[in-house]
Amino acid sequence: MSELRQNPITGDWVIISSKRRSRPDQFAEKREVKRSDEKIEKFCPFCEGNESMTPPEITAFRKPGTMKNTPGWWLRVIPNKFPALGIVGDLTRQEESDFFRKMDGVGAHEVIIEVPYHNTTIGIMEDRQVKEIVLAYRERFLDLTRDHRFQHIIIFRNRGAGAGASLLHPHSQLIATPVVPRDVRARVSLASLHYDANGRCIYCDTIREELEVGRRVIVDTADFIAVEPFASCVPFETWILPKKHNPSFGSISSEECSSLGIILNQVIGKLHKGLADPDYNYVISTSPLREDHTDFYHWFLRIMPRLTTPAGFEMGSGMYINTVFPEEAAEFLQSQ
Amino acid sequence: MSELRQNPITGDWVIISSKRRSRPDQFAEKREVKRSDEKIEKFCPFCEGNESMTPPEITAFRKPGTMKNTPGWWLRVIPNKFPALGIVGDLTRQEESDFFRKMDGVGAHEVIIEVPYHNTTIGIMEDRQVKEIVLAYRERFLDLTRDHRFQHIIIFRNRGAGAGASLLHPHSQLIATPVVPRDVRARVSLASLHYDANGRCIYCDTIREELEVGRRVIVDTADFIAVEPFASCVPFETWILPKKHNPSFGSISSEECSSLGIILNQVIGKLHKGLADPDYNYVISTSPLREDHTDFYHWFLRIMPRLTTPAGFEMGSGMYINTVFPEEAAEFLQSQ
Repeated sequence: MSELRQNPITGDWVIISSKRRSRPDQFAEKREVKRSDEKIEKFCPFCEGNESMTPPEITAFRKPGTMKNTPGWWLRVIPNKFPALGIVGDLTRQEESDFFRKMDGVGAHEVIIEVPYHNTTIGIMEDRQVKEIVLAYRERFLDLTRDHRFQHIIIFRNRGAGAGASLLHPHSQLIATPVVPRDVRARVSLASLHYDANGRCIYCDTIREELEVGRRVIVDTADFIAVEPFASCVPFETWILPKKHNPSFGSISSEECSSLGIILNQVIGKLHKGLADPDYNYVISTSPLREDHTDFYHWFLRIMPRLTTPAGFEMGSGMYINTVFPEEAAEFLQSQ
Repeated sequence: MSELRQNPITGDWVIISSKRRSRPDQFAEKREVKRSDEKIEKFCPFCEGNESMTPPEITAFRKPGTMKNTPGWWLRVIPNKFPALGIVGDLTRQEESDFFRKMDGVGAHEVIIEVPYHNTTIGIMEDRQVKEIVLAYRERFLDLTRDHRFQHIIIFRNRGAGAGASLLHPHSQLIATPVVPRDVRARVSLASLHYDANGRCIYCDTIREELEVGRRVIVDTADFIAVEPFASCVPFETWILPKKHNPSFGSISSEECSSLGIILNQVIGKLHKGLADPDYNYVISTSPLREDHTDFYHWFLRIMPRLTTPAGFEMGSGMYINTVFPEEAAEFLQSQ
């Protein structure tokens, strides 16, 4: 029988109906698992040597003595060439015909080029490379936080065409918005209600519960747990939660950056191996920038594999239909 | 420059950034526009003559004298063979370890087989066929409303593999849920706030505003308007709104069923022609079943073409990035 489950953090009800497909390993399909391969592609704008094909770099981790926008880097951050939001404009809410509200598309849209070469990805990189990626996330997050026009920063990674990636070269993105997005507002609101009622952080409670239940935890380290959430929206949805209560990703320590890099590489390595390099998105959920939610909010990283296609039901309801129970998904990933 | 726009009905902010892609007609790609073709497929479970390949029918529109589950029908409703929710189970909310909430997957999941033959679709059907589809929607909606375990009914159509359709044969689906989905609750809540503040229905206000602005309206009939919403989430998102204020799809008249069929066929015909038979979902948004929102809620039909892939940003924020301004999309569709 199928089940309806509610995620206490998002408030979402999910339908979990495993009848519709059978075994977790059926998702691996006929894809080939790629190995890391340090190749430079001649026409890839993100490969080393092609720096002139991108807008000028914002920052880079590079060998001493090498020049900006030239080879010698091992991680490079650039403005998105086709930005969703731009750095100039007016923050005033405008009205179209007294009813519709709009504003200029003010914000920042950056690309974190994770490595100088083409054919690798998180999950098959060296741990030290993924640690550097997390350090770059934090550096850009902190720098953009200083721009008081921005209300929120989303750091995300699209892997594969099915996850909306237009380029194969390993990269992440960051978008700073001048409004607090709806889903963020909803999570803040639910967390504050839980805090008002229980005097505890709902994320800390979730971590404690998941560790107690145990079955859905796939990695447990000193600083983080990786878990298939009780009400997973999609097959193999995975959350990486920091054990230390902290509302903002921007305030994590360098040691936490390091251990996040390690667990991220390990968890995505399991997806990569078990599901044959699936398309996925991950996103860092963090507190809005100009609000103090110290007591009750808690940052985390959410991975959503794109193995199924959300359809009209999901679109009209905001509810998901998931064809794999998270307990099965966890058992499968634990063994990878 | 890109713009941020807010949809007053959903509260969502959308980033509209046309720099990222240029002209509406580029979305038509290399697909071939299909014509209606009254072919029966030997192995399609939804084609006439293959009735034994599906679960027994719930209802059908059929020629007098023909028997249930045999040929002679022109529209047929069956239970989904792999239902997301099932008709038996317990409605009690259960707790797993005092923290996580779940319940049995109680509900209904039906398939409306729209025509007895395979190679056609709404947009290239006869108007009378689409009218019958709408009549079937209403009949099933009203029948399932009588089951007091259900809180909400979603009627939707997935067209094309990219929209989550696993079968090509023209069909729609219906899912009745024992909970009110999150997005429905959010729309009800925003509509009631608008009513409290202004004493008017926010949907009626939207219709009046859109008619006054004019540019985004693509079809305007006595009973309905079809419009590219001011804050469209995706390229060519189209809403069909009934001019008559009415919270529930279930209470529309037979004449309205008829005019909805005509405008739906016309609007999807424009998408079919202009964008070369794009994948899309549509969904009927209606009031929760056990609540009276007569004064401020208003049903409508929302069409979401699947021409772009939502990625990590959309997933983490609930905000969309749309690459086509609705005014451009409307101009393009008006001319189809």
